Amino acid sequence: MEKLTIVKVGGKIVSDPQMLDNLLTSFKAVSGMKILVHGGGNEATELAQRMNVPVVMKEGRRITDDAMLEIVAMVYGGLLNKKVVALLQAKGVNAIGLSGADGNIILSDRRPVKTIDYGNVGDVKSVQTENVDALLKGTFVPVICALTHDGQGHLLNTNADTIASVIAEYMASLYEVDLCYCFELNGVLKDFSDKNSVISEISASTFDKMKNEGIINDGMIPKVFNALNASKSGVQNVYICNYASLQSPENGTRICYQ
Amino acid sequence: MEKLTIVKVGGKIVSDPQMLDNLLTSFKAVSGMKILVHGGGNEATELAQRMNVPVVMKEGRRITDDAMLEIVAMVYGGLLNKKVVALLQAKGVNAIGLSGADGNIILSDRRPVKTIDYGNVGDVKSVQTENVDALLKGTFVPVICALTHDGQGHLLNTNADTIASVIAEYMASLYEVDLCYCFELNGVLKDFSDKNSVISEISASTFDKMKNEGIINDGMIPKVFNALNASKSGVQNVYICNYASLQSPENGTRICYQ
Repeated sequence: MEKLTIVKVGGKIVSDPQMLDNLLTSFKAVSGMKILVHGGGNEATELAQRMNVPVVMKEGRRITDDAMLEIVAMVYGGLLNKKVVALLQAKGVNAIGLSGADGNIILSDRRPVKTIDYGNVGDVKSVQTENVDALLKGTFVPVICALTHDGQGHLLNTNADTIASVIAEYMASLYEVDLCYCFELNGVLKDFSDKNSVISEISASTFDKMKNEGIINDGMIPKVFNALNASKSGVQNVYICNYASLQSPENGTRICYQ
Repeated sequence: MEKLTIVKVGGKIVSDPQMLDNLLTSFKAVSGMKILVHGGGNEATELAQRMNVPVVMKEGRRITDDAMLEIVAMVYGGLLNKKVVALLQAKGVNAIGLSGADGNIILSDRRPVKTIDYGNVGDVKSVQTENVDALLKGTFVPVICALTHDGQGHLLNTNADTIASVIAEYMASLYEVDLCYCFELNGVLKDFSDKNSVISEISASTFDKMKNEGIINDGMIPKVFNALNASKSGVQNVYICNYASLQSPENGTRICYQ
């Protein structure tokens, strides 16, 4: 099978010009077919504050009422996505910016209200692999933001980590997929004060052990959890690695469910 | 040659839910390959006002400083483009939303400063017909907003009428192109008080005559002028027609340079 690299990058890197440039240089150097998925939560929060739209987070997730949906559509789909595309084009990468509605690539269901009403938030239902593949074969490099749609004409706000893992999962039927969650560190660290103490591999069982020992904690827990899920769901290679060395993700932490 | 229909619609129709629905229903009914180009100036002005960003127009054109560029990127590329795409998808049209940076489809030059500095405004330099064609052949329906890029990493604000005519001009080498500038009227009217007094055809010479006689005036002059230019530049069929009857643009006004 041909290789496909899917890179997920957070809003923190996207909104810092120097970090973004390093990321995109490193993304350009990735050989073969590739997809970039980006977040942008901080910039959405900033715009909401400028527009006096209340920002409400519950359990770390954004409550997305109609006013907030307009904001995330503007920030994710317009401001950040188009900026990244223009910068990649300047580097000679034939980027094409997409939400999940474009080409119908990611269909989702509005999250049902249980204890919390998240509003216009979508849980991914399916990925149109043929349409993603048509773009890749057309020599485009998809740059995907954290928006999906319900197929009924409504956009929905969807977590970018989830989008990356679900696309990887679906595309794993057509390609040998490397899924790279990238960030500022070199990988998952054994000792937070030593940036070179990268743990080379984490499995489901070592994850539990490391959590219990406090080696993996705080924000790293959901990151590794997502990565383990992707591996469990059939994605061939999953890494947590540095944003500036995407050409060699194996220098980061390999996440392997079994 | 195969037929390609390119429809340009203004922001006024896009920002009215009922008119937008009628437009998209009529656009869906257009057979064969098609492209939708949309504006959104009023919504950009509205957002600028909410964000206390000054709106400066000179000779009917928007001065686009850096703050205004962010606003048009958000409104054109995010808010409106993604809304139109999601609504078209709900109607079963495989829409894909694009700026000129996406797939490098429209390269432009920053407008040189003569008497007025328009800021981040681009004059179209070229259209990548192969990339547009790859999308059409991939069975996507491009929905293009009024943003281009300079190939150096910068987005530029570009008039949507111009984008529509330039794309039509370039695509006319590969397809038999119908270019439809659509609006609320049934065509160019002989008598503004009679909505059925549609002028069936306007050429360069009858345009001059009608201008002199005051039959064509005000906002209609640049519209017809643009349409004549497209016809002069080799676009096979150019129409000014009603947004709700795009299947039969010949019921509107045909604009034919010679």
